[in-house]
Formats: sequence, C-alpha cells, structure tokens
Amino acid sequence: MGGSIIGERFVAMSFGESHGRCVGIVVDGCPAGLPLDESDIQGLLDLRKPGQSVVMTQRKEEDRVEIISGIFNGNTTGAPICMLIWNKDSDSRPYEMIKNIPRPGHADYPAMVKYGGFADYRGGGRFSGRLTATLVMAGAVAGKLLKRTLGIETVAYTTEIGTVKAGNITPANIATRYSNDVRCPDPAAAEKMREAILQARKDGDSLGGVIECITSSLPVGLGEPIFASLESDLSKALFSIPAVKAVEFGSGFAGSKRRGSENNDVYMIRDGKVVTKTNNAGGILGGLSNGMPLVIRVGFKPAASIAKTQETLDIAKNSQTYLEVPGRHDPCVVPRAPPVVECVVSMVLADHAIRAGLIPPVLK
Amino acid sequence: MGGSIIGERFVAMSFGESHGRCVGIVVDGCPAGLPLDESDIQGLLDLRKPGQSVVMTQRKEEDRVEIISGIFNGNTTGAPICMLIWNKDSDSRPYEMIKNIPRPGHADYPAMVKYGGFADYRGGGRFSGRLTATLVMAGAVAGKLLKRTLGIETVAYTTEIGTVKAGNITPANIATRYSNDVRCPDPAAAEKMREAILQARKDGDSLGGVIECITSSLPVGLGEPIFASLESDLSKALFSIPAVKAVEFGSGFAGSKRRGSENNDVYMIRDGKVVTKTNNAGGILGGLSNGMPLVIRVGFKPAASIAKTQETLDIAKNSQTYLEVPGRHDPCVVPRAPPVVECVVSMVLADHAIRAGLIPPVLK
Amino acid sequence: MGGSIIGERFVAMSFGESHGRCVGIVVDGCPAGLPLDESDIQGLLDLRKPGQSVVMTQRKEEDRVEIISGIFNGNTTGAPICMLIWNKDSDSRPYEMIKNIPRPGHADYPAMVKYGGFADYRGGGRFSGRLTATLVMAGAVAGKLLKRTLGIETVAYTTEIGTVKAGNITPANIATRYSNDVRCPDPAAAEKMREAILQARKDGDSLGGVIECITSSLPVGLGEPIFASLESDLSKALFSIPAVKAVEFGSGFAGSKRRGSENNDVYMIRDGKVVTKTNNAGGILGGLSNGMPLVIRVGFKPAASIAKTQETLDIAKNSQTYLEVPGRHDPCVVPRAPPVVECVVSMVLADHAIRAGLIPPVLK
Amino acid sequence: MGGSIIGERFVAMSFGESHGRCVGIVVDGCPAGLPLDESDIQGLLDLRKPGQSVVMTQRKEEDRVEIISGIFNGNTTGAPICMLIWNKDSDSRPYEMIKNIPRPGHADYPAMVKYGGFADYRGGGRFSGRLTATLVMAGAVAGKLLKRTLGIETVAYTTEIGTVKAGNITPANIATRYSNDVRCPDPAAAEKMREAILQARKDGDSLGGVIECITSSLPVGLGEPIFASLESDLSKALFSIPAVKAVEFGSGFAGSKRRGSENNDVYMIRDGKVVTKTNNAGGILGGLSNGMPLVIRVGFKPAASIAKTQETLDIAKNSQTYLEVPGRHDPCVVPRAPPVVECVVSMVLADHAIRAGLIPPVLK
Repeated sequence: MGGSIIGERFVAMSFGESHGRCVGIVVDGCPAGLPLDESDIQGLLDLRKPGQSVVMTQRKEEDRVEIISGIFNGNTTGAPICMLIWNKDSDSRPYEMIKNIPRPGHADYPAMVKYGGFADYRGGGRFSGRLTATLVMAGAVAGKLLKRTLGIETVAYTTEIGTVKAGNITPANIATRYSNDVRCPDPAAAEKMREAILQARKDGDSLGGVIECITSSLPVGLGEPIFASLESDLSKALFSIPAVKAVEFGSGFAGSKRRGSENNDVYMIRDGKVVTKTNNAGGILGGLSNGMPLVIRVGFKPAASIAKTQETLDIAKNSQTYLEVPGRHDPCVVPRAPPVVECVVSMVLADHAIRAGLIPPVLK
Repeated sequence: MGGSIIGERFVAMSFGESHGRCVGIVVDGCPAGLPLDESDIQGLLDLRKPGQSVVMTQRKEEDRVEIISGIFNGNTTGAPICMLIWNKDSDSRPYEMIKNIPRPGHADYPAMVKYGGFADYRGGGRFSGRLTATLVMAGAVAGKLLKRTLGIETVAYTTEIGTVKAGNITPANIATRYSNDVRCPDPAAAEKMREAILQARKDGDSLGGVIECITSSLPVGLGEPIFASLESDLSKALFSIPAVKAVEFGSGFAGSKRRGSENNDVYMIRDGKVVTKTNNAGGILGGLSNGMPLVIRVGFKPAASIAKTQETLDIAKNSQTYLEVPGRHDPCVVPRAPPVVECVVSMVLADHAIRAGLIPPVLK
Repeated sequence: MGGSIIGERFVAMSFGESHGRCVGIVVDGCPAGLPLDESDIQGLLDLRKPGQSVVMTQRKEEDRVEIISGIFNGNTTGAPICMLIWNKDSDSRPYEMIKNIPRPGHADYPAMVKYGGFADYRGGGRFSGRLTATLVMAGAVAGKLLKRTLGIETVAYTTEIGTVKAGNITPANIATRYSNDVRCPDPAAAEKMREAILQARKDGDSLGGVIECITSSLPVGLGEPIFASLESDLSKALFSIPAVKAVEFGSGFAGSKRRGSENNDVYMIRDGKVVTKTNNAGGILGGLSNGMPLVIRVGFKPAASIAKTQETLDIAKNSQTYLEVPGRHDPCVVPRAPPVVECVVSMVLADHAIRAGLIPPVLK
Repeated sequence: MGGSIIGERFVAMSFGESHGRCVGIVVDGCPAGLPLDESDIQGLLDLRKPGQSVVMTQRKEEDRVEIISGIFNGNTTGAPICMLIWNKDSDSRPYEMIKNIPRPGHADYPAMVKYGGFADYRGGGRFSGRLTATLVMAGAVAGKLLKRTLGIETVAYTTEIGTVKAGNITPANIATRYSNDVRCPDPAAAEKMREAILQARKDGDSLGGVIECITSSLPVGLGEPIFASLESDLSKALFSIPAVKAVEFGSGFAGSKRRGSENNDVYMIRDGKVVTKTNNAGGILGGLSNGMPLVIRVGFKPAASIAKTQETLDIAKNSQTYLEVPGRHDPCVVPRAPPVVECVVSMVLADHAIRAGLIPPVLK
C-alpha cells in the first residue's frame, strides 16, 4: 500500500509537506462512538510544537489541528477521520540554495535521485520532522480510544541527551515528565541535559538522545506471531519518526550480554494475576504482549541541521562545496519527541487491540 | 493481512509448526525468468540447521527443502513459489508436561491466553525458532534475485556472544565468516565465543549476542518516506526472528551520544560516484538508501530454553512450580542466525527494489 | 485496510460526508513528474455535478476541487495527493425526520445498525452519491497518467435508461457523448431517454439504466491471475459506486446463452498486431488484458429517493409509517455517472499498469 | 499484495498449477477452536470434481485434500491452515503443441506476453479451472466457520444452461440441488439442460450458463462503505473464478429497467424482525447487508475448450493456423461450479464477519 499508510484495522494515511499547504492524516477504522474533538489532539500537539522553550528551535508554529471529517455530534462515526494543520507561510527562499546541495545527514540526496528532481525539497518536504505532527494527530485518537476502552496508557520520556543520562526514574517523576524543558523525569539530569543542549547550540552543533516508553495495563496476547509481532509493528512505526536509528525492547542490547538464567523472567502470581518477577522481556514474549508493562527504548541521532559550516557536494556542478544549513532548527529533537513516541505506540496498539477483538466496532 | 504475511510486491506467507507436518512459505511476486531450484535454497538452510557443530543443539534435522509450485523448466514463472520442509517425527511427549507450565522467556503463556488453549504448543508451535527456516527459504529466493539483477549482496556475521566482542572485522575475514562455528570474522574472538558458549552449556545456561549485517551495491532511493522507510520495513522483518530484542542502523545508540558535526556524513565524489566519507547513517537517510553500504546490528537475547531448573507457574493449578525445560536446545542461537538475518534483509530489499521499479516483472 | 482504501500501488483513500465539512480523497503512488493542477480534475467534476440540465437534480453544488498536497511547481512529486471539495452549507434539517425512519432503497437502516446510531445520516453521510466526486478526483489523476504514459483512454456513455435502449453506437458519436443531457451517443435514443426521465420525475418516481465503458490502447497482460484479475479489481471498484447492482464484461450474461464456437474470439494479425476478430471477451482473458478494447456494462438501479410517498418503518416506535423523502434528488443518476465510471476504471488500470512495471516511478 | 491473496482478516493465498506438483491454498485468520479435518472439505471437493456424470469431462481426478498445517487435536489453532491436493501425473505432452498457438478464449496469449514465455502453460497452468479446487478448500473452512458461529448458510444452483432456463425454484427443491447432474433445483429444466449439454458435446461445442446463489441468516451491517461494499468484495472474489463474465445482485440488470417505486423494498416487521416486503436489493443496501437473504447471479461464458477445429495464430510463425484443443474437457463448466460459488461467497462473508467483530478470535 506504499509508505504513506500504516495499520490494518486502525489505519492511518499521511499527506502533506513541510512547506506545502498543510500536513495531515486520515485515520480509518476508529470505532464509532468515541467522544472526540480538536482539544483531544491539540494538547499533545502543543507538547510537540516548536518554540516552547530555549532548548527548542525558536520557530513559532501554531500547529492548530482541524478535524474535517468523521465526527458527528461530538463522536466518531466509524467513518475516516481526516485531520490537518494548515501551514503558515514559511520562508522557503533559503531552500532554493540547497536544491542541488544536499545537506549532510538529511534525505535531500536520496530524495533527489528517487524522485528525479520533482520532490518538494522546501523545508525537507515529506522528510521533515514537521510530519511527526501527523503521527501525533493519529496517535492522539488511538491513545484516547485505548484509555477509554481498555485503560491502556503510554508514557514516554527522555533518558539520555548526548552523554548525559538520567538516573532516578520513578512512576512519580514520570508523571511530571512534561514539567521541564527536556522531558526527563530525573530533575537533576534534566538540568544537565538542558545545559548540554544550550552548549551544543552555542557551538553551532546538535545532540542526540534516547527516549524510553512504557505502556501499562496492556492485555495479554496482543500481537500476531512472526511478521506482526508487537516488536515488528512497533519498530516499523517508530522508525517512521525521522532521526530514529535504534529501537530496543526490554533488556535489549544489554540483554544480549547476559545469560538465559539472568534474562528469563520468572512467572508468579501477584494480586491474583500472572506476572513476572523481572521484566527483561519488556512485556513481549514471542511477539505477544504478556501482560507486563511494555518497555521500549528509542535512539535518536543528533539533529542533522547544524549552524556550523559543513562540507558537501554541489550535485549540479559535481564539485565539493561548503554549506551553512538555512533556517532555524532544533539543537536537539529529543525534547519534542516524547509525545510523538507516545502517539506512535498508541497507534500500533490500537490497531492490534482491534485485530485481537478487544475493542468492538461500536463503543457503548 | 495478519501476521503470517510480509511484503507488498515480493510477498511471503508463512505456515507450519515446529512439530506439525511441515514448515513452509509461499513467495509471490518473484519476477518470471529467475533460474531457481532447491540447491539455491539448500545451501543457506544448511548453514542454519542444527547439529553443525558443538556450539549448537545436537538435535539432527535434515531440513531438506522442496519447491512444490512456481517453477517450470528450471525458472520462476511469475506464479507463487511454495517451499516447505517436511518435519521428521519429533518426540513431542516432553511438551505434554509444559502444556500448563509456561517456560520462562518463551511465548507459552501469552499464546495460551491468546488462543484459548488451542495453540499447538509442541516444540513451541508457531513460535519456534524452527520457523526461521521459512524465512531462509523466502530470503534465499530474494537474495538470488537481488544478486542477479542488481548485484546486491548481504552478509551477516557474529560480532558479540555474551560479553565477548569481535575486534578486527575486515572485508577479507567477513568473506570467511562461515568457516568457524560461531560465524565471527575475527578468529581470535571466535575462539573465545566458542569457549563461552561451551561453558554456558556446561552450566546449564545460555548466551545471547549481536549480529551485524552489511548490504553492498544498494542503489540510491530504495524505501518510501514515513511508514515504509527502509528502517521501518527492515526492523519489522528482523523482529520477526525469535529472540531478537534490539535493532540499530549505522551508528545507532552510539550515535545518540554524539554531536551532529561528528555524526553527519560528509558527501564527496569517489570514482565518479556520490559517496559519504563516513557511514554513520548506515546507508539510510530519511528512510531511503543513499548508496552507501547498509549497516544493521541485531541484538539477540540469550536462548530462553536452559537446562537449569527454573521457577515458574502451573497455570492449571495456579501455583508456583519448578521446571526443567525438555528437549535438546541451542545454548546460544546466534551462531545459527547469520543466514537468517541475511535472508530476512534480502526479502525486504527485494520487495523495495520491485516497488521502486528497479526489477522488471520478467527477467531477460 | 478497511473500506476507505483501494489499490495497491496507485492507492486512494476516501474521506468526508455528504453534509460534513468536505468530501476528499488522498492518492498515493502516482509517479513523480506528472503535470497536474486543479483544471485537470475540474473538467470531469463539472460533468458529474448536479444541476447541469433538466434531467438532473436542481440542487446547485459548485464542487470546486482543491489540491492540498503532493504538487510542486505544477508537477506531481511522488508524495500523496490530497484533493477535496468543501461542502457548501447544506440544509440538513429535513434529515432529522429520517433519523429513525429508514428510506427504502437507501443504506439508512443497515448503517443505523452497524454504527449504533453514531453515523452521520445527514444527506446519506458516507453512503451519499456525493462521495462519487471523490472517485472522480482520484480517477482524473489516473486518467491523465494513463493517457500521457501509455495512451490509454476510457470512455463511458449511457446505453439504457429505464426501458429505452440506445441503438446506433459508433466511435464518432461516442466522442460527442457529453453533448446531450443523458450522455447517450445515439441522439434519437437520447431524446427518448430525456423524455422518460422527465416523465418519471413528473410521476414523483425515478429510473435506472445502463452505462457502457470502453478502454482502448490497453497493453497486453495487465491484471494478475486469480484474485487480482482485471474483472475482479474493476468490478470491486465499480460496485463502490452507489446504485450499481450489476457488472458484466464483453458478451457478459448474453454470452452465457451462447455456444463456445460462437463466443470464442478468433486470433488474427491486423496491422502487424495480434488482435481478435470479435471481442466477446471484452478485452480480458484469464483475468488479463489481451490488447483488445476493454468492454464493460454497468447496471444502475433506479434512484432510491423518490418524491412519491412510500411505506416504511419508524424504528424508534417500531411501527409502520409513511415517508416523503426530503431534499431535491436526481430522478435518474445515470446521466451524471459516465465520468464516474470512466474515472473508476482509470483508477484500477493505473494501479495495474504500475504493478505490471509499465509506468515508471518518475516520468521523464 | 498481488493476485494470489484475498481477504483482510480471513486471508487466503493460492499456489500451484494445473499440471505442476499440486494446487493449494493457505488460509490465515481463521479463529482458533473450530473443529476441522479433511472430511469437512472433501465433501465439497467431491461435488466439484470432474467425472461425476456424463455432462462433465471424463477426466478422473481424485482431488484428495491434505491439511498440512494449522490443525491440532482436531481443531484450528489460529495458525495458517495450508491445504493442498497433489496432482496425479497428467499427460502434458499435448500442451507442447499449443505452446505457441494460443487457444481462443483462453489466457494463453496474454499469459505468454505477460510472463515472457516463462509461464507454465501445461493444462493452462495458473489459469486452469483446476485452481477452483483451492477456492473450495478455503471456502469450505469459511463455510463451516459461518455456519457454526452465526448460522449463516450459502446455497448455489444452476438456473440457466445455454438457452434453457429453470422455472420453478423453491426452498425445497434448492435443498436437493445436488441430486441431478446439472445442479438445477427445477427437475424438468434440469433434464433439458442435461440434454443441451450432451448435444453441445456431440457437436464438439460447449455451453455457458448462470448460477444463482442465496445466503440466509446474514446479520445486518456486514460490509464497509465505498471500497469494501459487500458487492465490491463479493464480485472481486466471484470474478476470480475462471469463465465468470457477469455478476449481479438482487434485481440487477432487470432492476435497471424499473422505476424506483417498483424497485425499492418496503420495510416492515415480521416475527419481531425488520425485513423488507420484496428483496430487489438482494440483501445489500449501501454496500451493507440489510438482514434479507443475499441474492447473487453469476454468468459463466461457454467453456473455451471445444473439440471443433478453431482458427487461431501460430505466434512463433506469425501466421494463421487451425487448432484442435487437446485434452478432455467439460462441455459446460456450470454443473461443477455451484460448490465453487458457495465457497467463494463464504470466504468473503467470513472475512467481513470477522472484520465486523461478529466472530471472536477464539471459539468457545
């Protein structure tokens, strides 16, 4: 079905470009009878939008969502929900200069080749981080659906920025993750992360980082063996977020260094429920949810757009050149990414919950 | 389309169970005119099969592939290619005892819940590592197709087993990766890995590890933006391999700690071709191949089946119990996994090459 | 993927409701480099819009298309093309009265049950004939693509209205099919059809009819055996048009009464090309195009909305009642349907032409 | 996903060729817990197999189904069900002669072009009517599932052979439809049909015909608006049957000649259930089931293989030639088609019943 569609029963189709008229997404398969209006989505978009603090790009984008189909009398109808954000007039002139000069670390060069020069390169076009706003829109619907029907909740937060690593993460401080600029539950680490980002920006440079994501109250048995394992479908969706280069579940790469006797999670009964003593599996066994919290870690590369002069090619002239990337950019995309990760995970889980027959086509 | 199907134009549908009559896969969308017979597949299956060396399970499985459709006069016809391996009589009796006693680290418990007790639990059923033989069958076809039409080749090899890490990896020693038991190009590390596995087995325990995978001669522009990024579709397929818990591309998690100026790859011309000086992107920018080698690292958890007694639950009795996992198992699945990783990657790349119009429906 | 999506490589996703904010469609998979603007679509929409003549509903809808993504510098970019029509303020009050009183022949009752009362029933919501405007938008893009790359053209015209049947149909008069109100190439029949429709309206009643569709210059070999036969995919798309209840190819039901020796088409060479003397197959053998013109006939039921009082149920009161269908309606939908049929056929053929590798991802 | 796959949640993938090793199909998405063994399928296969009576080809094919995955302890497990029939040694030599001489009315010529000469042409390969055995296998599973969970039953029977038309069709005689050679409920018409077929064979010719299909006990609301209307998905599947050239629902083409006031079905309450007085809609409104019996008519062309000498081309020599079609063939395929139509319809309805949440993933 091509790269603009994801999901089987909770399906989303993305459209729009960074500097085109809009960015949008159509969601099909959301059951009828879910109360929904723009405010359910706007809150998450606001947590993603640029310009919220000094660690982010100072571009101002209002990112006001409009729902243009699929809602009637305040509820979903079972029909496709089209949501979009009209782009404000952007200054696309600086991008003229990069038309033939691919920015290192960006999709410019492969897109140029793939689309024979027809792609809309302004602001990165389809490859812009701005498209993550569409993931938030679709995922906000999914998140509300999961919460209301199954009590499922997903939280994502920053655990690493550059070489700064969060220490103390607790359910209590996760709940306050959006109270600091970098969305790190550990306040001491958050402060250091903030400084590291400001320093990177001062140096005309950028930083990467890691986001951790936890989903609780997941029923047992979501996912389908082999090609639609939860890990398969979650990673597919997560790697749709620009700048993501690594995904691990549970003990992940660290688990690769362990012995089976250390890494296997022992089953036990707690409060009448089957649980495991540890959760090295990150809530997934054989591709299926096992009832324990889902634990994912997502690695983001440092933002490709940096102020520093970089060496690159002028493709038209076939010669080496130097480039200062135009525009105002995030010195680190990680602080804006937790709502995106939460929403992407919700989108996949909503699809699987419907596939597993756990959410009916009409909500009472 | 459910969890048994992958791909859009090069499509594979898996069937079969570990201790059922067979394991098999149907491949549709392979262009007509590719010379193909069982020997093209058997070689890769032989590299995956158990019992090849002391570091593997001593189970003997012949794993002889049969192609039962889609070939005529020694060539593919454009019709679906059904390939299968008939299972030899397995001793399924030991599995009776685990019917209600889920093995830690295995899919037993979520599968029991998901399928209401109807799943074929013998030997792990659909969740068995044995199913990776079907991935090898489909991927062997894809690999031959890619090699013949576009010169694309994929190699995978072990870089870590437990805490032992390969040092010196070169194109030359990668070429000999299958010459040692653990499939590690670095012979000194290979020897230590071998010892580590034998020690783990002696301890009734198991080890995990990491496999690295390189694809060369990839054309520029494979992949589709957003939901069918190469990272998305590759990770989806790789997480279909049992025991995989982590996937990273290029500099991956290590890149998350770097600055943009370090991690961005500078463009240059070499031999008249656009290349990058470094390859931190692992050959993928914006989800599209950029012409550099594809670099993937895949983390495997330690094998869940260990000889040591483990604590678990008797679900029928709702009480704690102890379990010795029946059967003969790999103390580490990594040495058998490189051909699986190679094949899975080929499968995804063949799909994308056809989608990009780079492989015609009929080969000349 | 649900009912709002069609196609595999040329994919369309529909959204919107009759009296909602808009009706729209997103097309993905259109190759880059196709010159496209609103005027390419508006012409076909104008042939479909209501109020063009006395045989149509006197509702005035401007149906002005806006392309809001996927075009840059006047060309397609390879990105999804979102097209929509903003609905003008409709008078939805009359529909309040039918909320619980299903109109005979409409989707009201099954939709009420399926969506638990949450569906947007105003103007028929998702089930309205107004949604065919979205098929025209997607199909207009497909039609231009097919014409420009492969010279393929599709024409549809009225052959029956009620019991009036066209006689003389020639390539010459097909070319002028849009010059009369009922889009019938035979002018004498057209006049009688017009009168029949006016009489039916006068009687507070409606008529059905038949549209024939011819595609020329189709290459040999479009379609895929079994489930994606051209007949399969064309009929699937054609039955998406409200009021269509019958589809036949070539000699169709009439062919069922013939002997094989009459119905088989004899091969011969004409102008150096393999053709058949007759075309009872309607251009399709074994589900594949055979190079002859595609011939389809599509049967439309009489419009369900009639002015006459009809007996029905009040579902809320569980009692028999009488209904006068509110709104201004077409006494016969057939005269507005030829552009819809043309566009739907183009959509399917564009998908198959791309699948067959006959249209590249970038147009030169 | 290509032409070998159908369905979204009840998915089938076909493989095999007429004179290859086997014909088979893999069904995924069948809920766990359905009692199933070969006998559930064999009965329907036996009604389709050749050689049952004088009106059929005298070829003897045993068509013995084997289930090779997806069943455990006599029940479905939720895993893919692979079913196949091993082909007996066929005499493929006669087909050598038609390698370059396309048979009129068959797929030979377009297949030759599409697959560049690589297709397996023996016995028609993938395009053979023999592949309908795979539809029966998948549909037999679907039919049992629908019967057991929702009480849905589908019956198909012959209403026309050549110009002979059945008159008196009643529920009682439908029940005995398989008691005569031609599967026509009206015994007097059946006798005339039988004679017509024998006469056609004597003349070295063939006949077509029409099959009617009724599904009862369908719940309200199956189908999805626009592209997955029940008519869309049913016709897509029905046109997958070789020789089908026409499909109509309810009053179909006859309805096109009527007025709305005649064709609209009036709602009423009968036995506490909402029904319609007439059933011109054939059980489908707006693409959704309305609770009335589904009524479909399927037109089959006369069998293309006839004994009479036919004119055609020698493609290799580029010259006109004469052909006597080799092999023993059905003078009319219609008598063998009712179980195929029943099964194809069941397959689509099972998919939609699962999509609508009416059949759970595990049966109790």
